Amino acid sequence: MSMRTNYCGLTTEALLGQTVSLCGWVHRRRDHGGVIFIDLRDREGLVQVVCDPDRAEVFKNAETVRNEFCLRITGIVRNRPDGTINANLKSGKVEVLCHELEILNASVTPPFQLDDENLSETTRLTHRVLDLRRPQMQNNLRLRYKVSMEVRKFLDANGFIDIETPMLTKSTPEGARDYLVPSRVNAGNFFALPQSPQLFKQLLMVANFDRYYQITKCFRDEDLRADRQPEFTQIDCETSFMSEQEIRDMFEGMIRGVFKNTLNIDLPNPFPVMDFAEAMGLYGSDKPDMRVKLKFTDLTDVMKDVDFKVFSNAANMVNGRVVGMLVPGGGSMPRSEIDAYDQFVRIYGAKGLAYIKVNDKAAGRDGLQAPIVKNLHDAALAEIIARTGANDGDLIFFGADKAKIVNDAIGALRVKIGHSEFGKANGLFEDVWKPLWVIDFPMFEHDEENDRWTATHHPFTAPKDGHEDLMETDPGKCIAKAYDMVLNGWELGGGSVRIHRADVQSKVFRALKINDEEAQLKFGFLLDALQYGAPPHGGLAFGLDRIVTMMTGAESIRDVIAFPKTQRAQCLLTQAPSEVDEKQLKELHIRLRAAEPKVV
Amino acid sequence: MSMRTNYCGLTTEALLGQTVSLCGWVHRRRDHGGVIFIDLRDREGLVQVVCDPDRAEVFKNAETVRNEFCLRITGIVRNRPDGTINANLKSGKVEVLCHELEILNASVTPPFQLDDENLSETTRLTHRVLDLRRPQMQNNLRLRYKVSMEVRKFLDANGFIDIETPMLTKSTPEGARDYLVPSRVNAGNFFALPQSPQLFKQLLMVANFDRYYQITKCFRDEDLRADRQPEFTQIDCETSFMSEQEIRDMFEGMIRGVFKNTLNIDLPNPFPVMDFAEAMGLYGSDKPDMRVKLKFTDLTDVMKDVDFKVFSNAANMVNGRVVGMLVPGGGSMPRSEIDAYDQFVRIYGAKGLAYIKVNDKAAGRDGLQAPIVKNLHDAALAEIIARTGANDGDLIFFGADKAKIVNDAIGALRVKIGHSEFGKANGLFEDVWKPLWVIDFPMFEHDEENDRWTATHHPFTAPKDGHEDLMETDPGKCIAKAYDMVLNGWELGGGSVRIHRADVQSKVFRALKINDEEAQLKFGFLLDALQYGAPPHGGLAFGLDRIVTMMTGAESIRDVIAFPKTQRAQCLLTQAPSEVDEKQLKELHIRLRAAEPKVV
Repeated sequence: MSMRTNYCGLTTEALLGQTVSLCGWVHRRRDHGGVIFIDLRDREGLVQVVCDPDRAEVFKNAETVRNEFCLRITGIVRNRPDGTINANLKSGKVEVLCHELEILNASVTPPFQLDDENLSETTRLTHRVLDLRRPQMQNNLRLRYKVSMEVRKFLDANGFIDIETPMLTKSTPEGARDYLVPSRVNAGNFFALPQSPQLFKQLLMVANFDRYYQITKCFRDEDLRADRQPEFTQIDCETSFMSEQEIRDMFEGMIRGVFKNTLNIDLPNPFPVMDFAEAMGLYGSDKPDMRVKLKFTDLTDVMKDVDFKVFSNAANMVNGRVVGMLVPGGGSMPRSEIDAYDQFVRIYGAKGLAYIKVNDKAAGRDGLQAPIVKNLHDAALAEIIARTGANDGDLIFFGADKAKIVNDAIGALRVKIGHSEFGKANGLFEDVWKPLWVIDFPMFEHDEENDRWTATHHPFTAPKDGHEDLMETDPGKCIAKAYDMVLNGWELGGGSVRIHRADVQSKVFRALKINDEEAQLKFGFLLDALQYGAPPHGGLAFGLDRIVTMMTGAESIRDVIAFPKTQRAQCLLTQAPSEVDEKQLKELHIRLRAAEPKVV
Repeated sequence: MSMRTNYCGLTTEALLGQTVSLCGWVHRRRDHGGVIFIDLRDREGLVQVVCDPDRAEVFKNAETVRNEFCLRITGIVRNRPDGTINANLKSGKVEVLCHELEILNASVTPPFQLDDENLSETTRLTHRVLDLRRPQMQNNLRLRYKVSMEVRKFLDANGFIDIETPMLTKSTPEGARDYLVPSRVNAGNFFALPQSPQLFKQLLMVANFDRYYQITKCFRDEDLRADRQPEFTQIDCETSFMSEQEIRDMFEGMIRGVFKNTLNIDLPNPFPVMDFAEAMGLYGSDKPDMRVKLKFTDLTDVMKDVDFKVFSNAANMVNGRVVGMLVPGGGSMPRSEIDAYDQFVRIYGAKGLAYIKVNDKAAGRDGLQAPIVKNLHDAALAEIIARTGANDGDLIFFGADKAKIVNDAIGALRVKIGHSEFGKANGLFEDVWKPLWVIDFPMFEHDEENDRWTATHHPFTAPKDGHEDLMETDPGKCIAKAYDMVLNGWELGGGSVRIHRADVQSKVFRALKINDEEAQLKFGFLLDALQYGAPPHGGLAFGLDRIVTMMTGAESIRDVIAFPKTQRAQCLLTQAPSEVDEKQLKELHIRLRAAEPKVV
């Protein structure tokens, strides 16, 4: 005989009159009119169990149960009395009259109430097992599962096969952020945990697997920001013989299917596509939050000869930029809010936040209100109004500095205003899902500090057709076949068409000033593989943690991971990482550096 | 326009007359009667491409291609001429008359022919990318994918959800076999890679996830035997509120479904069930190969008073055992074969291999042929014949020693004879799939060296109902709710019902002489969780690598893993593990022990 016949949360009127056995936890016990009511909880939800005093043994047992006791009950499903129906529960029209009650396991008093909304994260992570019993965490992890299963079904239907790549692999020579694993058998040697399966998936394409995917852990040993974990999960995909457009269409379809089949959300079809230059130009970001109805107006050329030095210096600087950002209706923004934004942009390196209120544009200079107006000549003011399309009652914020600072600061300001009460009240924010492809990334970024070019994406990304020679003649102009999928200001995933020809790969290495020996040492096995008829191929990787965080509206990716690490990379539940025995270190041929005598 | 419209291997008569674009590799090029024939290969197989000299450009290109060049061709599907149909290919009735031929990528000459059957494993693993192009490896990894996807579909349909558990976790205090990962952020501390998600999956049951699974990497740093890898993949499952029988039924159904839906093999329904004691008694193994029609006959009690010291000593020894193994028709076995078996059992610690040939059992002692006969009294000989059921023309092998040696040696001999030419010719081997549940394992094994009890499975395994007190009074008699699924002599998976009550867990720790402090240190977070109404739960784990190895008939699990390690735990493709920079070690607060000055 089965321990249970039904789930608590799925006990509905369809079972009326039937005897059921249910297992679950005491969510709440109420004694009312001499009868004991137990809300019994399992993963599907709650059901009300009624223990009458005329069943003496049941009642006696019921009197001893406390919250979080684990029970098995058997009873008959019946209608709840009129007026006691709970419309919030699937089981809310019925209750179970208990005939047998077995205490499967008692519980000590939990350190907190499961429905307490104000738990600190430390408490939650320390008592993670109880925290995971809370409906929100149950829902988050079940949605995570549904997302990954939808991904698998989609990819399976499209001929992708899941192939496992190694977890114990090779450290890359610069090795920053690699987690290392000392080898016992091979003294003095180390494995590295993969930062991504990038090279292996390319090898699988060369090996004729044609369409690969994997939902796999990746590792990065970096200081942990709010939305990072030392181990994170990627949906990693690669395909041969498909163009950039075909790849994007394929994976756009995947994400659309996931949203539809899990949350019944219809994402736009097709997703809008924007090139990198436009994204940076209009939003100062390669992952713009398109829900926000604000954009940049470039004014660099206009400001070269104004008296206001902040603007003219930036406009004449190498890599300088001056932008305006029109805030429709912003004229009513209180001074205190403007001051707060002034402080806010300084976080991103801006030295302040200039603005102009447009009171009466027909009045020319006199209709514009701001300290900077007097230092801008008429032509500049007219151009500002014309280009931004400002109307009376609007406000224009300005950024003027190195382009990176302007983009970061005014880009962040754009999002902040959009999400503010002001933004929402003034129609500057549209609360919908706004996906976007950002494409045509530059192949290379200039590393000013070391005066050299680095790969924007990674050195295996293919240049656009016809851009191969630019790698040598004008690297900054060379565009890559790289693409990111962005949703509401978050990068969901990104990828590229890869280089499949050894001669093109050599050009990239030359542009990056990687000589043959270094290339061989770092990527020898990939370069070797490219020689044997490597096929045209490309792919991308999605961050599963982040996708699910967005979909659940969770505050942190830690809320969509069963056993996450803290921002100090610690597990509060198991106390990992921890000290280990000297014997273990000895077997691994290492010792702690702390034991090193200090030279004074 | 798509780079390709169809797969080479799926180009069949259904496409006759159509123009197709195919991408793939030159498997073979033949010039015949002024026409060039290219067998083009993709992951679905081969198709014949015909390049006529009257299409000059195509022909010119075709002349330059060599094996493993990567091509894109466009052409018209037409019937092959009569007499040239290849019944071994899906595409064997058709060929593609090539109109366009683009060389997507050239190939240098491969270091070996892909269809060479005699490659060394070193060659194969060094050039793994080419090795993976071989049909056998393509099939192995695709079957592996199908198996894992069938598992997911089955578990999904049964309400199991995939939940990821940490890869960076805590080292267990004894820590043998743990791979360690030094923490950069937490100096002097180490993560361990999981040997299994055992404790986490139990925590998930306490956390009300009810039915969990994961197909996940596990790690064990041990000397590598033929069928082990440092990282291996487990199908890890756990469920609450199910009995042992229900759990076994569930997962038996899963494996039956996997075999049916991938290889169209019908495994028996239900699987036979045998308890541990019977398995050891009859086959000397807890994973008997049931294809072999040989079994042990226990003779320990019969041999206590015989003159033959090898038998009587073993029969009177603590933990001694004497068995006979009847080999029907074995009387015809040549002396050389018997001698070879005598050598074989010595590998397992046996000191020799006694036997009796039954020439004429009606003749009593005189009808039995063997040196040992003269040292066995009449009653013993009669009992040997009676118990084994020997007939004229049969042979009986004997094992007499400590039980462990007898079981290992005669158990291995049983399998060896069964699989031998002799065994197959004499009906001692049935070439079918023979699954089996082995259940009722002992809770504890006695560690003679340290005179203490150790857990046979792990210390969280529940004792059989009613056996709780035996843990203290007679641990050797205490039976566990543990079970292994065995197929053709291999353990596919195993598991148990777990302890969900803290008081029972304490009894186990007492039996294992683990004191409270030690228990808290080792398993504190599990013990803590058990206090909060832990539900009855249990589960099991299957070895995916091994299942797929069996299903493919591969010689090694390395043939079902894309990028395996050698038996020296090295990756010949990437050269992992490798040396790392001093800078990296410094960041991780460790240094190499080799650098330690030796004290002379």
